[in-house]
Amino acid sequence: MKYNVPVQVPVGVSNRHIHLSQADLEALFGAGYSLTEMKPLKQPGQYACKEVLIVAGPKGVIANVRVLGPTRKQTQVEVSRSDAFVLGLQPPVRDSGDLAGSPGCVLIGPKGSVILKEGLILASRHLHIHTTEAEALNLKDKDRITVAFGGERSVLFQNVLVRAGDAMALEFHLDTDEANACLLKSGEMAYIIEKCDPEAAEAPVAAALAAS
Amino acid sequence: MKYNVPVQVPVGVSNRHIHLSQADLEALFGAGYSLTEMKPLKQPGQYACKEVLIVAGPKGVIANVRVLGPTRKQTQVEVSRSDAFVLGLQPPVRDSGDLAGSPGCVLIGPKGSVILKEGLILASRHLHIHTTEAEALNLKDKDRITVAFGGERSVLFQNVLVRAGDAMALEFHLDTDEANACLLKSGEMAYIIEKCDPEAAEAPVAAALAAS
Repeated sequence: MKYNVPVQVPVGVSNRHIHLSQADLEALFGAGYSLTEMKPLKQPGQYACKEVLIVAGPKGVIANVRVLGPTRKQTQVEVSRSDAFVLGLQPPVRDSGDLAGSPGCVLIGPKGSVILKEGLILASRHLHIHTTEAEALNLKDKDRITVAFGGERSVLFQNVLVRAGDAMALEFHLDTDEANACLLKSGEMAYIIEKCDPEAAEAPVAAALAAS
Repeated sequence: MKYNVPVQVPVGVSNRHIHLSQADLEALFGAGYSLTEMKPLKQPGQYACKEVLIVAGPKGVIANVRVLGPTRKQTQVEVSRSDAFVLGLQPPVRDSGDLAGSPGCVLIGPKGSVILKEGLILASRHLHIHTTEAEALNLKDKDRITVAFGGERSVLFQNVLVRAGDAMALEFHLDTDEANACLLKSGEMAYIIEKCDPEAAEAPVAAALAAS
C-alpha cells in the first residue's frame, strides 16, 4: 500500500554502542557502580552515558565505544558491518534483544574486562512510532515499510521493521553504514513511502532467478 | 522505464584505494619506481598493486591502503564516508577524475610523503557496461538506473550512473558503506530494475515538501 503523500520522519543514526547488564557494568567499572547519564535520547527513558569502553575482537579493537542506559537484562553490543570487519567478527542483523547465536567479543573497562559469549549484533533498521500515529498510517507493530531518502545517493530502504508502542517517539533508526550509503545525518528527514509485504522485498531477485 | 525482468549484474565492492600520478609514485617510493601488479581487476587494463600507503587526515590515519594501477594524470584517493570520519575530512561524492574542490590528505610511503591539495573523494556508485550490452538494455553512457539487492537489508539504489564503453566489463561498483548497508559482497549479483530520470530520485522528497 503506497501512501498518497510520503510521510516525513526524523532520522536517528546509531553509532556503535553498548547496553550493559548490571553484572557486566560492575565487572567493568567496579562493585556497586551505576551509570552516569550524559544526554537523554529521543526514545523516552533512554540516555547516553559518560562511560565508554574498548571493544576487542580477534583482528582489532575499537576504543571509546559509548555505553547507553539504563542497564538491561543482557549485555548487547551494536556495531556497523564496517566496525565488524575491524574487529574480525561476523555479527548477524538482529532486532534488539534477539542475541541467541550471535558472536561474543571482549569489553575492556577501567576496572576489569568481560568476555562475552554472545551479544554482538548489527541492528535491524527500524521505525519507532507511537501507537496513535501508527494507527493513523494503518500500521501496527512488526509491520514492514519502505523508507526513502533522496539526494545524489538516493535510496529506498525496503523491509524496515515497525516498532509501534505507547512509549515510542517517531524516529527512523539506522546504523552508520546505512546512513553513509545515502549521506544521511541524524535529525534529517526521511520519508515513509509504503507499507510493504516482507516477501515483496525479495520479488526482484525471485523474478530474475525464475527467468535465468 | 521498468524492465520486464530485472537484469542480473555482478557486483564489485570498492574498498578504500589510491590511484597515483607518476610524480607522486616516485615521491613516495623513490625515483624511477614503477608499480608492481599483484592481481588484475575486472575492468580491462586495471590492476591491484603490491604497494600500500598510509593515508592521514587531521583526526586520524588509515594504514595499508591499496594502490591501483596503472598510474594516472592526477592522484586520487577513494574512501568510504566511514573512513572519512576516521580521517576527519569531508570528501564529496564524485565521479572518478572529477577532483576540483575536493579536500586533500597526506600520503605516507616508504621513501617519502606527499601532501595532496585535492583528490580525496567518495566514489559515485556506477555501472560499468560494454556498449553492445548497453544498447540491448536501451542504455547509453551517463544514463541513470535503479539497482536492487534483496535480503534482510533489501535496498533500491536510485540514481546510479551508467558508464558505457567499448573497454567496459559488466559490473556494478559501490563502496564498502553502500555494500554494508545491504550486506553485499563482491561477486554477488544485484539487479537493474529500471532506467530512471535523475529527477525521479528526488520525487518522494519533493512531493512531501510540497504537501507540508
